Amino acid sequence: MRIDEIDLRELTNSFEFFIKEGQEARLRHLLISMHPSDIAAIINRIGKDENRLYLFNLLDKEVASDTILKIDEAVREDLIEMLEQDLLTDIVDEMESDDATDFISELPEEIAKDVLENVEQEDAEEVKQLMQHREDTAGGIMALEIVSVNKNATVDEAILEIRKKAEEIEEIYNVFVVDDANKLVGQLSMKALILASGQKPIAEIMEKDVASVHVDMDQEEVANYARKYDLVSVPVVDDDYHLLGRITIDDIMDVIEEEASEDLQRMAGIADEEELREPSSFRIVRGRIPWLIFGLVGGLWGAEVIKLFEGQLAKVHILAIFIPIILSMGGNIGMQSSAIVVRGLATGEIDVKDVYKRIFRELKVSLINGIVLGILLFVYAFIRMDVQGGGSHSSTILPLELGAVVGVSLLTVILVAGFVGTTVPLLLKKVKIDPALATGPFITTSNDIIALFIYFAMATLFLNI
Amino acid sequence: MRIDEIDLRELTNSFEFFIKEGQEARLRHLLISMHPSDIAAIINRIGKDENRLYLFNLLDKEVASDTILKIDEAVREDLIEMLEQDLLTDIVDEMESDDATDFISELPEEIAKDVLENVEQEDAEEVKQLMQHREDTAGGIMALEIVSVNKNATVDEAILEIRKKAEEIEEIYNVFVVDDANKLVGQLSMKALILASGQKPIAEIMEKDVASVHVDMDQEEVANYARKYDLVSVPVVDDDYHLLGRITIDDIMDVIEEEASEDLQRMAGIADEEELREPSSFRIVRGRIPWLIFGLVGGLWGAEVIKLFEGQLAKVHILAIFIPIILSMGGNIGMQSSAIVVRGLATGEIDVKDVYKRIFRELKVSLINGIVLGILLFVYAFIRMDVQGGGSHSSTILPLELGAVVGVSLLTVILVAGFVGTTVPLLLKKVKIDPALATGPFITTSNDIIALFIYFAMATLFLNI
Repeated sequence: MRIDEIDLRELTNSFEFFIKEGQEARLRHLLISMHPSDIAAIINRIGKDENRLYLFNLLDKEVASDTILKIDEAVREDLIEMLEQDLLTDIVDEMESDDATDFISELPEEIAKDVLENVEQEDAEEVKQLMQHREDTAGGIMALEIVSVNKNATVDEAILEIRKKAEEIEEIYNVFVVDDANKLVGQLSMKALILASGQKPIAEIMEKDVASVHVDMDQEEVANYARKYDLVSVPVVDDDYHLLGRITIDDIMDVIEEEASEDLQRMAGIADEEELREPSSFRIVRGRIPWLIFGLVGGLWGAEVIKLFEGQLAKVHILAIFIPIILSMGGNIGMQSSAIVVRGLATGEIDVKDVYKRIFRELKVSLINGIVLGILLFVYAFIRMDVQGGGSHSSTILPLELGAVVGVSLLTVILVAGFVGTTVPLLLKKVKIDPALATGPFITTSNDIIALFIYFAMATLFLNI
Repeated sequence: MRIDEIDLRELTNSFEFFIKEGQEARLRHLLISMHPSDIAAIINRIGKDENRLYLFNLLDKEVASDTILKIDEAVREDLIEMLEQDLLTDIVDEMESDDATDFISELPEEIAKDVLENVEQEDAEEVKQLMQHREDTAGGIMALEIVSVNKNATVDEAILEIRKKAEEIEEIYNVFVVDDANKLVGQLSMKALILASGQKPIAEIMEKDVASVHVDMDQEEVANYARKYDLVSVPVVDDDYHLLGRITIDDIMDVIEEEASEDLQRMAGIADEEELREPSSFRIVRGRIPWLIFGLVGGLWGAEVIKLFEGQLAKVHILAIFIPIILSMGGNIGMQSSAIVVRGLATGEIDVKDVYKRIFRELKVSLINGIVLGILLFVYAFIRMDVQGGGSHSSTILPLELGAVVGVSLLTVILVAGFVGTTVPLLLKKVKIDPALATGPFITTSNDIIALFIYFAMATLFLNI
């Protein structure tokens, strides 16, 4: 049974009702037909901690092990604190090495130590080994459970190896082929194994050209690599091509989603990745407020720029009218340029070495946009200010002059915004800072300050005020 | 051989050199060891159309068929126009049905018709069948090449079926099990097939609880579904669970990337998806300028709001100083709230039915942010305006009053921005418009207008001007 989104709410209500009534048999019966992902979705939605715990304790350990990994991080943390030590150990024993490592690194230090002491010796060693890799590298997301055979083996021997590993590894997509030094020399698809006769040496049917990734490769690059070459299971190797582990497609999909979410949030000015079901408003604020304060301070600089031109503003207060339009257009243009660059860098489609080509292109686009929009604004300012006549303080300013100043200012601001929006992410990438950081408040804020200066300087210069 | 990004540039140079020198043997030798994705990357980077064509014509038709799908759309369009009709037909014959359908729908109508007439009868019918589904649904991305067996078959019979389909289907991850009416009743992993003895009825070893998607399901939902249940190959069914086709993981990864790129671009105010290597600046402008003009018109409304308060501005021109800060903070807050909602809706983690909970949460967060930032701005305005003393036109305004007005305005604007940023995407989702559309220029622009009104209205009211 798989749940449509539509039932999720009602089902949660039923669960909460049965929990309240203590109808254990009924709950067990429901749970037995459900996928761990759906059980996790229900647990996420259940209101009370003790009800979550009650439900979780009804799961058998294999399902519990699959379920806990699918529960939202914020909910999981609270749940783990309430679980018995024995159950935690059993849960970890059921996990594949990559999941066990992620899970244990999330545990509070004391509990993690206890669990590592109590799980099977072999599992503990694997986890310790995997923990040495950085979390966001190939080594950090790989699993050690692989089916590998020596290149001198036969098809039957490969099948025997699969049989041996069958219980330990849930999904097997490939058999990796290694030489006597455990260096990766080929791979076999399950299809090829099924179709070949048993006595055939695997060296004859294996693909020799195997795509593999280095253990230190960044996880985003691993995802791009897997996508580029349509890989379902990516072997991970060290400097000398020794086979260390494999990354499966479900983990790669998670990486793609994670990186896309992270980029989007960073571009929106959210510092740490925010959980959608994060229960604490203060924790949310903590993630969001740093860039807001940065924006505020930037805004104060903008205020200072305007104060610089206070005299001009006092003479021609009508200048204030065009402040919002100049700023928002600069912001929009900067956003467009940087979104393209940030995304292209993330998917590997833009090469940092193409920087001049990219900047030139964005400048050309900005120029066209700037001319069109500048003319439109000129026309508006000319007509609208003309209607006003010389009635206000601005009597000395001709509509034509004012129109020209705002039009040219807008064009200039758009060119600068396009340039800044393109170069800042490229520069950040070059110094190995996440370019998505640049696109949000940082670009908007600096564009604001520059734009205000351009606008008032041009007004001062050309309006002779 | 697989290319690191590092060599791509040099390799392209070598290719261009060999092409110029007409060293066909050398080029063939290079190409033979390369993956179609890498050949496509080289073709993307080669400068001249005729050089691209020359290189492409050196590929054998199987490689050509894999390569052409990996070439950037803008480049591919030009290349296709130069290809011989016969080669086009051969290329399509080599493709699986989903790729062939995508490819043919991209062709100019005349050419598409010719190709459909010349490819194998069976392929042509499959393509026509697949073309009936909307491009962004499960039916639009599925392939018809599947291995399915009747539930009464044995393991040996399933293997025989795999052997029959082996040439037609490159990657086989699952065998689907159907009843006599072709309804999906189970599936078998390749692992299970390898490990079972040949005479075993597959009904005994198949998984009965199969995850499948409806043929009309939106592709983004399909991707979320596959990710949730860790599927590598998703069977597609109709209303009555008849098995129609399957979607493989590589296509799902493409969907995830595509949707993430699309969301990001839309949030940045880019109307049509922009190709990273789009050669025409005018085509880029065409995608970007609609929202810019929308932003300009919105900005003009902002200008009109300020003009409404022209009298007040003439009296207290210092009010202009805080326009940028009020606007940018509103923009930042709106961006944060909507980015979270848009992303959550895209990944299916936010349920439209949770709308009140979501709004309440964002308002709480906005309130905390607004109080903190409002106080900071109050302090700045108070101190900074105090230093100025009563020297300027604003002699009648006390720093304390001004500080209070900007502080409270900021708080109000932040609350409104948080509210708008959360509700607009949710509303759009409800009326089935892509919520990402809302986050860019639309929210920023409407926030600007509202914020200006709040600010000037408050100033008028509380400063008695």
